[in-house]
Amino acid sequence: MKFSKIPTATITRLSRYSRALEELAEQDVKVISSENLALYCEVNSAQIRKDLAYFGEFGVRGVGYVVKELLFEIKRILGLNKLWHLGIIGMGNMGSALIAHSNFPRQGYHFVAAFDVDPLKVGKMLPQGFPISPLSELGKIAREREIEIAVISTPASKAQDVANLVVETPIRGILNFAPSQLHVPEGVIVHHIDFTVKLDRLAYRMGSIKPDLF
Amino acid sequence: MKFSKIPTATITRLSRYSRALEELAEQDVKVISSENLALYCEVNSAQIRKDLAYFGEFGVRGVGYVVKELLFEIKRILGLNKLWHLGIIGMGNMGSALIAHSNFPRQGYHFVAAFDVDPLKVGKMLPQGFPISPLSELGKIAREREIEIAVISTPASKAQDVANLVVETPIRGILNFAPSQLHVPEGVIVHHIDFTVKLDRLAYRMGSIKPDLF
Repeated sequence: MKFSKIPTATITRLSRYSRALEELAEQDVKVISSENLALYCEVNSAQIRKDLAYFGEFGVRGVGYVVKELLFEIKRILGLNKLWHLGIIGMGNMGSALIAHSNFPRQGYHFVAAFDVDPLKVGKMLPQGFPISPLSELGKIAREREIEIAVISTPASKAQDVANLVVETPIRGILNFAPSQLHVPEGVIVHHIDFTVKLDRLAYRMGSIKPDLF
Repeated sequence: MKFSKIPTATITRLSRYSRALEELAEQDVKVISSENLALYCEVNSAQIRKDLAYFGEFGVRGVGYVVKELLFEIKRILGLNKLWHLGIIGMGNMGSALIAHSNFPRQGYHFVAAFDVDPLKVGKMLPQGFPISPLSELGKIAREREIEIAVISTPASKAQDVANLVVETPIRGILNFAPSQLHVPEGVIVHHIDFTVKLDRLAYRMGSIKPDLF
């Protein structure tokens, strides 16, 4: 872990700042104070300044941040000024929902291939302009279309087998939607999507248990 | 915001600790040191102790945490020792994938109703043992089945209309999978699921941009 000095929470918040700055840019806001950006992102302004300080100096004292400049810089930090090529494996309901989701291309993530093992699905043309490929062609197509990130949306029982195939290709990042832990060799980065973590936060805020009682 | 002194990041990490403790309990681990729990969760042990200190004293110095005890306590803190009733609105690919996802019931979140406006979907029996209901019955069914959280998985263009209907019912929590910001009155809590935030973190870790260059 090379940049372990930068907390994961900072990276997560940078994503949130970049989403907010995009919305502000769309509303044609040119400059925003750190206080107002903080309100918009529901963090405190000291936190924003602290997060950005890891990467350099941004903003003008007494003026604030130039929205488009800061957006550009944060995207640069996050590596988002490039387009990422995604391949999705598992074209059931989840895979079909993900590939159609407008957030991905809007944020620079482009699906360039889709894979399944079901002969009824393989060959089916997608609105993205390419057909579903057989999983057996993962390696070949990963190289041809320069897939960088694999999105796994198979049943839990198949996810590890798929991950084993992925690590044999040049793909070095996996986003796993299947509810199972994946084991991959060093050099491959896996992130899990667990919707229930968000539900826990929601439940906590809705819950009636008072920390004061402990 | 009543408990604003407890950072959101702490709540997120508590979820992660509870997932880890569940796995350890399944492997029949009885006791774990904070160092080993920290390794397992990929945080540092001081962080775990700090997070838990918000809620009281846990663990025995020199011994560690009793896995099942700590799991029970964390679930209590998160309000997860109760079952939550979820209703899902929008039974397209995303809705169908979510209602079938094994993580929800495993973590205490039970779908008790599903809604759609499509007459071809309404009435269709789900494996969960209830049919898809027409959206017009949201209020009635929310009361009958005591729905506490609405999961919105409609197209972005319909999400705000659906949220407007939800806030007219006793439901006070919304988990929004649609890629659109929702505006709700005070007293209703909305959390958004944005998959691309996780992708940003992955991309950042995969990226070649060095913070040292700034």
